[in-house]
Amino acid sequence: MSGEARPLGAPPVAVTAGIETIAGELEAQGVDVTRVDWRPSGVPSALEKLAVGARLTAAANDAAIARLQSARPALAGIAIAGDVIPGLTRRTVLHAGPPIEWGRMCGPMRGAIVGALLYEGLAGSDEEAERMAGRGEVELSPCHDHHAVGPMAGIISPSMPVWVVENGTAGDRAYSTLNEGLGRVLRYGAYDEEVIERLRWMHDVLAPALSGALDRTEAKPDLRALIGQALQMGDEVHNRNRAATSLLIRAIAPALADEGGLEAAEALRFLDGNDHFFLNLAMAAAKAMADSAAGVEGSSVVTAMARNGVEFGIRLSGTGERWFTGPAGEVEGLFFSGFGPQDANPDIGDSSITETVGLGAFSMAAAPAIVRFVGGTPEHAIETSREMYEITWSESEAFQLPALGFRGAPLGIDARAVVQTGTLPRINTGIAHREPGIGQVGAGLVKPPLPAFEAAVEALAGDSA
Amino acid sequence: MSGEARPLGAPPVAVTAGIETIAGELEAQGVDVTRVDWRPSGVPSALEKLAVGARLTAAANDAAIARLQSARPALAGIAIAGDVIPGLTRRTVLHAGPPIEWGRMCGPMRGAIVGALLYEGLAGSDEEAERMAGRGEVELSPCHDHHAVGPMAGIISPSMPVWVVENGTAGDRAYSTLNEGLGRVLRYGAYDEEVIERLRWMHDVLAPALSGALDRTEAKPDLRALIGQALQMGDEVHNRNRAATSLLIRAIAPALADEGGLEAAEALRFLDGNDHFFLNLAMAAAKAMADSAAGVEGSSVVTAMARNGVEFGIRLSGTGERWFTGPAGEVEGLFFSGFGPQDANPDIGDSSITETVGLGAFSMAAAPAIVRFVGGTPEHAIETSREMYEITWSESEAFQLPALGFRGAPLGIDARAVVQTGTLPRINTGIAHREPGIGQVGAGLVKPPLPAFEAAVEALAGDSA
Repeated sequence: MSGEARPLGAPPVAVTAGIETIAGELEAQGVDVTRVDWRPSGVPSALEKLAVGARLTAAANDAAIARLQSARPALAGIAIAGDVIPGLTRRTVLHAGPPIEWGRMCGPMRGAIVGALLYEGLAGSDEEAERMAGRGEVELSPCHDHHAVGPMAGIISPSMPVWVVENGTAGDRAYSTLNEGLGRVLRYGAYDEEVIERLRWMHDVLAPALSGALDRTEAKPDLRALIGQALQMGDEVHNRNRAATSLLIRAIAPALADEGGLEAAEALRFLDGNDHFFLNLAMAAAKAMADSAAGVEGSSVVTAMARNGVEFGIRLSGTGERWFTGPAGEVEGLFFSGFGPQDANPDIGDSSITETVGLGAFSMAAAPAIVRFVGGTPEHAIETSREMYEITWSESEAFQLPALGFRGAPLGIDARAVVQTGTLPRINTGIAHREPGIGQVGAGLVKPPLPAFEAAVEALAGDSA
Repeated sequence: MSGEARPLGAPPVAVTAGIETIAGELEAQGVDVTRVDWRPSGVPSALEKLAVGARLTAAANDAAIARLQSARPALAGIAIAGDVIPGLTRRTVLHAGPPIEWGRMCGPMRGAIVGALLYEGLAGSDEEAERMAGRGEVELSPCHDHHAVGPMAGIISPSMPVWVVENGTAGDRAYSTLNEGLGRVLRYGAYDEEVIERLRWMHDVLAPALSGALDRTEAKPDLRALIGQALQMGDEVHNRNRAATSLLIRAIAPALADEGGLEAAEALRFLDGNDHFFLNLAMAAAKAMADSAAGVEGSSVVTAMARNGVEFGIRLSGTGERWFTGPAGEVEGLFFSGFGPQDANPDIGDSSITETVGLGAFSMAAAPAIVRFVGGTPEHAIETSREMYEITWSESEAFQLPALGFRGAPLGIDARAVVQTGTLPRINTGIAHREPGIGQVGAGLVKPPLPAFEAAVEALAGDSA
């Protein structure tokens, strides 16, 4: 689906459901139309409004896509979050997903916030941290509202080192933390001494080593090109990042060796030990791309999908920073030995920003080996990518899928097409234990809630009215 | 095709062609058989003999395959060729392919031998080197006769650093040089000052840096596992080695950084600059595996395929070190800009040892992106792997192809099946310019000559008589 003249799908006659324009057009063509009032919400009339203005929406979507296509996220360096992220004061903690208050947060997110307050030295004990958060003594704010993204709980506090990604075309910046590895880690809500120690080591050793190496690397790693290569190497760059992590190591290892010594070697061992290390960087690159497409009036292209473990939220280019939410879903996939669905937290994390720009489940055809992690067959992986073309406005020029004859990845989710077809975006994701600190218990696929897309389409129609 | 009871294919009635056993069996089953004497060579009677003793051959092939399956090639280290390769005296130069004398060698091989004599200081000029080689003052011998392999011209001289690969199960060792990169390099017959300088740098800087790092790396890289991973990452580990090279860098970068300094950084930059760096190591690993399967009496499994730029030679497990040859073929593929078929040398190099153990073209289904280098479509890549199951005795336990539902790569070419079906092994390969020193001019696929397989089958039948 692409191009200005594209009609908004071809709905079956029986579900014209109040979309008067289509019914009228069909009648004009001599088709017998039965009008049924099967859906009493404002959605059909919103779709009708957007269909009436389809030419306008198409032009707006083309403009949003053009920005996505021309984005050139590059790895600018590493900085301390509080020094660079707008609005991140000493008493602010950022979290994944749409806004949510402490009282409604899920276990892993609460645990991670406690850990961040301990790490920052703002609280001396977990009880004190919980008290502070409960009384509103720290501001809790979504990463997305600060040009940032975080996996799982997605916690970013002021002293944490962050990747700085710069979109060459627009000058936009995006930020994300460095990946801690698997097991007992903050993003899964763990906050014991081992977790805080690792965060300190990342601040004191890892970040300075990588930062120094990046400063000594002449050409800043071009993340768009690197991700494009990783798609030719079996990654979908969300749940599988082995190739991208390897390519990142290749890019910075020479400068690390230049410096040499224990810290450089420790840094390289840490990176080599974590095939997901690139994930956070992929997310920051995707965030920089998606942000560049935001704010095009009338565009129904999705610019953010994010989950806080309770709700799933989306943003459209044409509706700015408003969130449209629905309940976070259950992830369907494979559980690690000893765990099952009863252990799973609902869907959580900002990592679905990768699907927002055509990666992850949208590029699953590039990653047949991922089915051993998330379930299914290689054929299913290919089918998942294929299905996403139904709801995307265009195809990526930078991200190509070898198994589909190098077709560009499905790019730019059109919220209208989601509502019209009922086909929901697929998202590859990890499964967090519902208790803080136990960690990842599996991986699989999840769908966002349809009502979020319906509400977004209604709002866009309202704005266009 | 696998297992002891497997019959030797199901030949169409019209081509029973003197294979009396089959014709007789068909008649016994009431099938009308027309005997045609369409092929007046000894091949049909050889196939008949091997068919008569099929149970014996099957058992022998199972034994050879069991050795291939259980081989565990690991990277033991780096050494100087003359110190470790058996029979490599100060005045010996090893070359690719089956035996060939100086007078019949192709341009790139002659150029590379001149370069090696200059590098060794055995000759002071190219004229002197050519004179020495022409007069037999240096011994020219196939790599394969010394447990070694070399890409393209495949030249190994005593002072060159070599990978040492050890097969854990059998204790066998195999050797190959370190990959020089692309462009004007010795293996394509270049021997100017830049080429010799690079070889000296590899001896003085690269090899000591890598060797030291490997000695400091606790677990020796398991090449079988690493290659298995690379197949999940879009390599077929012959013409595409980007993932394997990345994984190798990951494995040794920490130890290189431990040491640190200019030489470690230079080494890492060299590796990062050459996506084919792993090729020679893949070849040595494949050679260690193939050698372990050699010498099983009565086995028709191919244990070597190699080309010297004039002839293509094969060895069978059951015929020991005898070579069976035919003319080297023309590579069909894509030429680099400015070059065409008239520039191409016939097929050259030992790199087809990768296909011998199920990699390269046999694993092409794992590497859809390779079609941009060798031509064709991703579907064609999958079809190439599929076709190879027709002529292989088994499927690899270690090397799996995601696009085929993780089916094991076709493993162990059965020379009888090649002759019987007429299906020739496919080989992915680079194309060398026919003049020495110009370098690679393209890449593509090539087939070995059928007569080599016919002669091998005849010899095996003769041995079994």
